[in-house]
Amino acid sequence: MINIGIIGSTGYSGTELLRILSNHPDVNIYALVSKNFEGKNISDVYPHFTNLIDINCSILDTLEISQKCDLVFTALPHGVSLEVVAELINYGLKVIDLSGDYRYKSSDVYEEWYKINHTHKDLLSTAVYGLSELNRDEIRKGNLIANPGCYPTCSVLSLAPLVSANIIDTNSIIIDAVSGVSGAGRTSSLPFQFTECTENFRAYKVASHRHTSEIEQELSLLAKKPIVITFTPHLSPMKRGILVTAYASLTKNISSSELYDLYNEYYKNQFFIRIRSDGTYPQTKWVAGSNFVDISITLDTRTNRVVIVGAIDNLIKGAAGQAVQNMNIMCGFNETTALGLPGFYI
Amino acid sequence: MINIGIIGSTGYSGTELLRILSNHPDVNIYALVSKNFEGKNISDVYPHFTNLIDINCSILDTLEISQKCDLVFTALPHGVSLEVVAELINYGLKVIDLSGDYRYKSSDVYEEWYKINHTHKDLLSTAVYGLSELNRDEIRKGNLIANPGCYPTCSVLSLAPLVSANIIDTNSIIIDAVSGVSGAGRTSSLPFQFTECTENFRAYKVASHRHTSEIEQELSLLAKKPIVITFTPHLSPMKRGILVTAYASLTKNISSSELYDLYNEYYKNQFFIRIRSDGTYPQTKWVAGSNFVDISITLDTRTNRVVIVGAIDNLIKGAAGQAVQNMNIMCGFNETTALGLPGFYI
Amino acid sequence: MINIGIIGSTGYSGTELLRILSNHPDVNIYALVSKNFEGKNISDVYPHFTNLIDINCSILDTLEISQKCDLVFTALPHGVSLEVVAELINYGLKVIDLSGDYRYKSSDVYEEWYKINHTHKDLLSTAVYGLSELNRDEIRKGNLIANPGCYPTCSVLSLAPLVSANIIDTNSIIIDAVSGVSGAGRTSSLPFQFTECTENFRAYKVASHRHTSEIEQELSLLAKKPIVITFTPHLSPMKRGILVTAYASLTKNISSSELYDLYNEYYKNQFFIRIRSDGTYPQTKWVAGSNFVDISITLDTRTNRVVIVGAIDNLIKGAAGQAVQNMNIMCGFNETTALGLPGFYI
Amino acid sequence: MINIGIIGSTGYSGTELLRILSNHPDVNIYALVSKNFEGKNISDVYPHFTNLIDINCSILDTLEISQKCDLVFTALPHGVSLEVVAELINYGLKVIDLSGDYRYKSSDVYEEWYKINHTHKDLLSTAVYGLSELNRDEIRKGNLIANPGCYPTCSVLSLAPLVSANIIDTNSIIIDAVSGVSGAGRTSSLPFQFTECTENFRAYKVASHRHTSEIEQELSLLAKKPIVITFTPHLSPMKRGILVTAYASLTKNISSSELYDLYNEYYKNQFFIRIRSDGTYPQTKWVAGSNFVDISITLDTRTNRVVIVGAIDNLIKGAAGQAVQNMNIMCGFNETTALGLPGFYI
Repeated sequence: MINIGIIGSTGYSGTELLRILSNHPDVNIYALVSKNFEGKNISDVYPHFTNLIDINCSILDTLEISQKCDLVFTALPHGVSLEVVAELINYGLKVIDLSGDYRYKSSDVYEEWYKINHTHKDLLSTAVYGLSELNRDEIRKGNLIANPGCYPTCSVLSLAPLVSANIIDTNSIIIDAVSGVSGAGRTSSLPFQFTECTENFRAYKVASHRHTSEIEQELSLLAKKPIVITFTPHLSPMKRGILVTAYASLTKNISSSELYDLYNEYYKNQFFIRIRSDGTYPQTKWVAGSNFVDISITLDTRTNRVVIVGAIDNLIKGAAGQAVQNMNIMCGFNETTALGLPGFYI
Repeated sequence: MINIGIIGSTGYSGTELLRILSNHPDVNIYALVSKNFEGKNISDVYPHFTNLIDINCSILDTLEISQKCDLVFTALPHGVSLEVVAELINYGLKVIDLSGDYRYKSSDVYEEWYKINHTHKDLLSTAVYGLSELNRDEIRKGNLIANPGCYPTCSVLSLAPLVSANIIDTNSIIIDAVSGVSGAGRTSSLPFQFTECTENFRAYKVASHRHTSEIEQELSLLAKKPIVITFTPHLSPMKRGILVTAYASLTKNISSSELYDLYNEYYKNQFFIRIRSDGTYPQTKWVAGSNFVDISITLDTRTNRVVIVGAIDNLIKGAAGQAVQNMNIMCGFNETTALGLPGFYI
Repeated sequence: MINIGIIGSTGYSGTELLRILSNHPDVNIYALVSKNFEGKNISDVYPHFTNLIDINCSILDTLEISQKCDLVFTALPHGVSLEVVAELINYGLKVIDLSGDYRYKSSDVYEEWYKINHTHKDLLSTAVYGLSELNRDEIRKGNLIANPGCYPTCSVLSLAPLVSANIIDTNSIIIDAVSGVSGAGRTSSLPFQFTECTENFRAYKVASHRHTSEIEQELSLLAKKPIVITFTPHLSPMKRGILVTAYASLTKNISSSELYDLYNEYYKNQFFIRIRSDGTYPQTKWVAGSNFVDISITLDTRTNRVVIVGAIDNLIKGAAGQAVQNMNIMCGFNETTALGLPGFYI
Repeated sequence: MINIGIIGSTGYSGTELLRILSNHPDVNIYALVSKNFEGKNISDVYPHFTNLIDINCSILDTLEISQKCDLVFTALPHGVSLEVVAELINYGLKVIDLSGDYRYKSSDVYEEWYKINHTHKDLLSTAVYGLSELNRDEIRKGNLIANPGCYPTCSVLSLAPLVSANIIDTNSIIIDAVSGVSGAGRTSSLPFQFTECTENFRAYKVASHRHTSEIEQELSLLAKKPIVITFTPHLSPMKRGILVTAYASLTKNISSSELYDLYNEYYKNQFFIRIRSDGTYPQTKWVAGSNFVDISITLDTRTNRVVIVGAIDNLIKGAAGQAVQNMNIMCGFNETTALGLPGFYI
């Protein structure tokens, strides 16, 4: 049994962490830190927790947290996390950070895309990029886990087998992605009002979303050469879910069944990755509410392109669920503990 | 550990039973019976179960089921359940029936509202109406549990303290209720197509829905006199959830805080019932994905009416969740096993 | 051809006025006043107007408006409208006010429910309550039209024939109403965020919504005696639409067909009111995008209650559409001009 | 004033034609043909038409229609249209066909993608592909207009300037497209039920949708060489709207402002095409309910790709609206008649 804290517990990712961890037998939730709701019971902020979780939100005290907790999740805005994580690491805590602040090998790339001065470059080299399926061994040994972004999780897992196998033109990668509205966080801004979002589909930040650089970093590491991609995010009128449709040109002749073999082999024994059978394409409702990643592979023989469709729940595998998966790996728990429930479907 | 079967496992209630029971430590799912999907793996019918549940649907064989199972859930259409349940009971099984076929004390009332000839009237006297909070002792001893309808569950629990306390004019009860679309089941009919339902709110079966009679039966038992109500169901463009707004005229002068005391006392120690604080009204998203019932009480001093708002998840407390709660009671398990998780909220 | 201005043109009611009036052959839109978007082209605020409407928003100048316009619509928050309308009336303009500020015969009732000091009580006696079908003659002669609230429009029209015919117990009226989210206006507040609203149904302001008093005023005038009602508003996850389910106890024996005759007679020659045939209940999608009011009448013979279901588009018949209808009446245009298009259905 | 008929009037495209034409001053609707609703009043099939349209649906009689009508819209399933259109053309009528049956120059391509034997190949050479903005002159002179598919309309208009200007690698075109659920038509099939569609985003017919071939035909004509593309359709939980995100690699150095100049010049004087300013991306709600096409152009300088985002209402510019636009062109009416209204936005 370990003691954990959630810093930034009343945003959507923090709340989702709490929901998942409330069902984890090896975890005691010691602290819920929330700047906006200090002193308020979490069940008054999120009434679905009533009768189940009875904890008052507290203000951040990194010293006290470090004395009482074994591991902390930080679910803070980019930039804010920078200092808080550094303090916690300095106190000797294990930290899983859900922001983008420690995801980059190069502080230059971070600073270019986030427009924030990175004040703890030394920590970047010790931080582990927490894509559980690809970096399990480093995660096991790490103290600071940079939990991946939602789009990068789905994009990198969708393309990793192709890139690693060196069978595509790495200049040809295009990622067209769609997110539900919870990706914008718990916010009161006009574009995310119900009346503005419902019955509406739109692109945003075309060729300029910062997750582009995170995806490029990880694909480049897998390819062992620099990869530059085109990435287009869209917003769909639904709460949860990310669906990625990724395109790449094949450099070899390869059959559809060989592609399936490649993916099945690459992801064998990965519980949370489900390669869907040929002709079946992932739907966000198949993964919503769960930590699964569903992937389909289509060979477009007319153009010799491969089209990968991947789906995750943006708040679970794309945030809180993967964070818990990483905690399970770090702490020697069963990797699926608290994550093995089916989603809701309906 | 008991063996259970789900007959009618691929409808929404059956699937929801499977989802909940897959997380139940004391239950082994022996059989998933489905007429439409015989021989098909349940994970091919509902792909969110892939990697979690690996069972082929089978055709109904009541004899075999009775030899292998300890308890069976029947989630069949009204009328179809009549014979199947009788066979299973005859074989000595415990049965929790989610249809309306065994909910009535009087076969006349059933036949009037369901337009079906009741062929097993003898069983009606042994069947227990499975509203867990009100009939726990009989459920514990029962072999045939008639699991309540979704609207009746929410309506009766919302009004039970008032009716039992004999402080309202029982002729004044009006129940205005709203359901999500999953209440219509898994069906391919035009009125429930996305394009027809979304952005649409409507009433249906005004003053003629058969749940009227079920609510009346239970309220009459509580009041110890016949009660006739007006009941209006509506359809809201959402998947899950029932919200009931119930009205009654008070026959006594009673303050708002006395009303709260009445409800809190009536439902003390009922884990799944949450009386919301004054001025806070239930929202379906607070209960969606959980077995909870949220209730608020408002005294309209200008008219001396009381307005009760109650909310449940129609597929959980209104169907599969209450069925599992009843199984827990019947089998001596902890009543909240597999039902103690928070809903999703987002 | 008249010149009109819209003051408060970038809220949802103001924008809807603009959308409707852009198709009105007898109207020239002279000014779009918007405090928040002064100087900005309306097509940059609402891009669906691009290529159709090319007007810059201006700041309020009541003198200039009064010199250039024949009639002005004020779509301002309650309280703000109070002074602006008074100035415009003082300048001799015709005004159709969409706020609640001039809807009350009694300033006491207004002040009690709105918690605003009424500073222009003199104008209340000259203001005409703009429920077009009931007050057409006064509207024709009026200079200041208080356009009705959305819930009152639907509620009063649903109950007017019953109340006028003196066949119900006026103490028994209960109105259970549901609105789409656009009723909250164009706002950036958290409870109206997509993620919070979608898949959620809830009650709010139970027995305390200020439209209660507006409905009571109008029903009392029709009944020629004071009427007090219970009114419960709800929020449904959809953009547009109001559905009212109203209950009243009959004081006479009357058949269902007599009730239909009553309604058909009461509303004969009212183009925008459609009495639906027995057993057919209004759906908000039948009226969404149009100025129609759909009404059904159900006699609950078991309780001798009548249940009326009424539906409108809250932004059209419940706001901008009725305002244009009133303008048509005041200006001697055909009452249906710019309002005779079918809604979208899909 | 011309007499028109709609054959297949109770599907979504047929109903949308009726909605638009009911507001057309130069058109008399002579016949609404519906196999499923013969003899039924259209206002009983679609209650939003009540008080506005009072026509009984009739069975198909091509001879009578040809004697009474000047122009007919056929909104029938693919394959069914084949014969009906041929008969009507044979009788000398002008026909606008909304099916795919007459869209192809080559019957081979049609037969390959539609798996239907083309029985009227002679008519293919006289049929005009009704993409109004590109083929206005031939449409004016045509008797048989093959109204384009929804995805092709949006895709071809989004890419036409690039392809015509010969500045992209025509092997590099990828089209990622999203549709609302009304694209599936008025159907009772399970995957399009509300409960299955809402809160769900999915790909379908990856690299195999038949609109691929239609887009290729039109782009090839513009490029004057064969073009093969990759096309992926998706389904979003909303009623209306198509959004296309199209990718192509530039073969020239060209600046973002030059790209904008290219588009603005290519589409100058095209009322229904709106090129959005740089950094602003189309949203389906900006075009929903209207005949507009909104387009944005983004130069991805990191990859030298251009990303075009285009949006239409699938039922209007993607079906019924463009059909009316084509009728206006054929009949010498103002091209925008009945199509110049703003969409709903909210």
